[in-house]
Amino acid sequence: MTDFAATRALFHLPPGVTYLDGNSLGPMPIAAQDRARRVVVEEWGDLLIRGWNAAGWMAAPARVGDRIARLIGAPQGSVVMGDTLSIKVYQALASALAMRPDRRVVLSDSGNFPTDLYMAQGLLASLGSDYRLKVVAPEDVADAIDESVAVTLLTEVDYRTGRRHDMPALTEKAHGAGALAIWDLAHSAGAVEVDVSTGRADFAVGCTYKYLNGGPGAPAFIYVAPEHHDAALPALSGWMGHAAPFAFDLDYRPGKGIERMRVGTPAVIALAVLDAALDAWEGVEMTDVRARSIALSEAFIAGVEARCPDVTLASPRDPRARGSQVGFRHPQAYAVMQALIVEDVIGDFRAPDILRFGFAPLYNDMADVERAVTVLADILSTGRWDRPEFHARQAVT
Amino acid sequence: MTDFAATRALFHLPPGVTYLDGNSLGPMPIAAQDRARRVVVEEWGDLLIRGWNAAGWMAAPARVGDRIARLIGAPQGSVVMGDTLSIKVYQALASALAMRPDRRVVLSDSGNFPTDLYMAQGLLASLGSDYRLKVVAPEDVADAIDESVAVTLLTEVDYRTGRRHDMPALTEKAHGAGALAIWDLAHSAGAVEVDVSTGRADFAVGCTYKYLNGGPGAPAFIYVAPEHHDAALPALSGWMGHAAPFAFDLDYRPGKGIERMRVGTPAVIALAVLDAALDAWEGVEMTDVRARSIALSEAFIAGVEARCPDVTLASPRDPRARGSQVGFRHPQAYAVMQALIVEDVIGDFRAPDILRFGFAPLYNDMADVERAVTVLADILSTGRWDRPEFHARQAVT
Repeated sequence: MTDFAATRALFHLPPGVTYLDGNSLGPMPIAAQDRARRVVVEEWGDLLIRGWNAAGWMAAPARVGDRIARLIGAPQGSVVMGDTLSIKVYQALASALAMRPDRRVVLSDSGNFPTDLYMAQGLLASLGSDYRLKVVAPEDVADAIDESVAVTLLTEVDYRTGRRHDMPALTEKAHGAGALAIWDLAHSAGAVEVDVSTGRADFAVGCTYKYLNGGPGAPAFIYVAPEHHDAALPALSGWMGHAAPFAFDLDYRPGKGIERMRVGTPAVIALAVLDAALDAWEGVEMTDVRARSIALSEAFIAGVEARCPDVTLASPRDPRARGSQVGFRHPQAYAVMQALIVEDVIGDFRAPDILRFGFAPLYNDMADVERAVTVLADILSTGRWDRPEFHARQAVT
Repeated sequence: MTDFAATRALFHLPPGVTYLDGNSLGPMPIAAQDRARRVVVEEWGDLLIRGWNAAGWMAAPARVGDRIARLIGAPQGSVVMGDTLSIKVYQALASALAMRPDRRVVLSDSGNFPTDLYMAQGLLASLGSDYRLKVVAPEDVADAIDESVAVTLLTEVDYRTGRRHDMPALTEKAHGAGALAIWDLAHSAGAVEVDVSTGRADFAVGCTYKYLNGGPGAPAFIYVAPEHHDAALPALSGWMGHAAPFAFDLDYRPGKGIERMRVGTPAVIALAVLDAALDAWEGVEMTDVRARSIALSEAFIAGVEARCPDVTLASPRDPRARGSQVGFRHPQAYAVMQALIVEDVIGDFRAPDILRFGFAPLYNDMADVERAVTVLADILSTGRWDRPEFHARQAVT
């Protein structure tokens, strides 16, 4: 059994704060502090350029990728770190479309995180007017898969409601129609049991600053199924993905396996901090994480529904159909969330009307659930969310 | 006059090391250490998700971009940070090609840094078989500009020899032929006087871990000339470049001005470290930097040519035709450089036969030049570079 009291102790959780926004930005693992100091002072400072070999910077994207692989059911050597999730979505989609040159439709859904749709729109506009991004309601995806579809581009867990797609079933349907399947695991990795191998994903991408606690703007990851390692071309063909980066050839030759999905110079400091954050997952079983996630979420839903008549559940009621976050609707959700944050219960608002709360089993516990329910109930019953300052929008909401 | 003794004191330079590789990775500014601690511990650790507003993370790409703008002659509001140089090359090129829809040729040269060529190859392959990357010798670029050319994609300062293109002249020629000009400033920013405004560059891109000392894998920058701000579409159309990122619209709408060139979630920790590194440029005049760069380079060339008959100058002899680095050829350049590094004179090797030395006026001085000349002369005259261990190639050379 995973010892969650021990994992909670690995994080810096500011006193008095109930943090239910790890689905947006995970808290700082205490180990990140010293690791940041070491990579800056001891590696960059003292080794200078020699750090690329002596401190293992050059190999870090694949080495850290292997640590992510274990958490998403991917074999070693099939995940590499780099760039942002938006860039990795573009790269996976461009690569997949080139593998289905006779098809023109990318299928996604309206519950996808917008940047996935935006990146697809930008790519398809460049490829030509015959390409089309088809966006259907999440529940209509399965029926929309037909032999016109080149690629399905889906986020497994909805960023607002936590609604979870059935990855194996949809992937099987896509493959049956001759399409490839890209899965965005932004709200899955570290939150639910993911198995890209049995799920037969062709590509998977994700970020590491949510449940993996890599820090603001931490590098993204990309998985390519081993059977595609020779066929998948990176589209964003940068020198770090070249077969021999330091030969400085004038022509691109893709590197071996997943290495070709590297693009530019790796973000060494950010990778080191992420690496330290991943230490928290050593010895952690994802089955335990999932069980605890469901226990916390179910307790939160029960508590809110018992004590907060003004909100309605936006997430699926069946925990098997949810990820690790819970959304409730309220017509003034923005102001309500601001009032919660002022009282140190931190979730977030997602337009137009969702209060979103993430439950991260590595550091959240039942005391967090109880405090969040109590404060939310009190704010709603007293109406003290309805102050002018809580309605004023900030740049990032 | 810039006080270079004062700027040198801002850097951590390991005792005994003569560091002439700041054109690959600048040394650690002492201020970076505390800034890294603050962004990790005080911002991420204590503010958590609130850091996006309270610590100014969301605005950092444009704010830091404005600091770079001053160093490259760009107006405020025309430079933004993000991603890697490879990604920014792709973005600039895709954007520029879309602005010349009736043309199919991208003109570059064989002295360009390979990743620029690789990214162009990847992009053009996706756009269709009628697109062509034309690569000529650097001295033939001017003559190769004709009305078939959509975009010139050139690196101002050659990464091996320091040979410097005439940006205003080539840009004027490109414009005369109806083409757009993209300039890669990787080896220019912080090294030579750059003025993208009088040089009339349409797009410029660069990295910040060389002469700008932002740390390994620090974020890149992109400049778009103000007259193109409405016409230039980002191609990599991520949510951070959306007109309203937190509206979560399903359709992409480009943001205002240079903001649209943002793609994904910014690398907050790396940006903070870079921001601290840029403090070193406060009060520094680029004319002083350039004068000192030439003085150091000329002294180095004179010393090496007087005392090292086995090497030949690979760089232009006229300092006006060079950037801030000097290359010398030696048939066993790799082994010679390893021998230098072992004796704490750090330059680097560039295939096939170049010893490369960068001179960064903010921290290099004449004592560095003298020691480098002395050790190089001694290694060459004694032949002590010719040991088996100096011929063994490492991953990064």
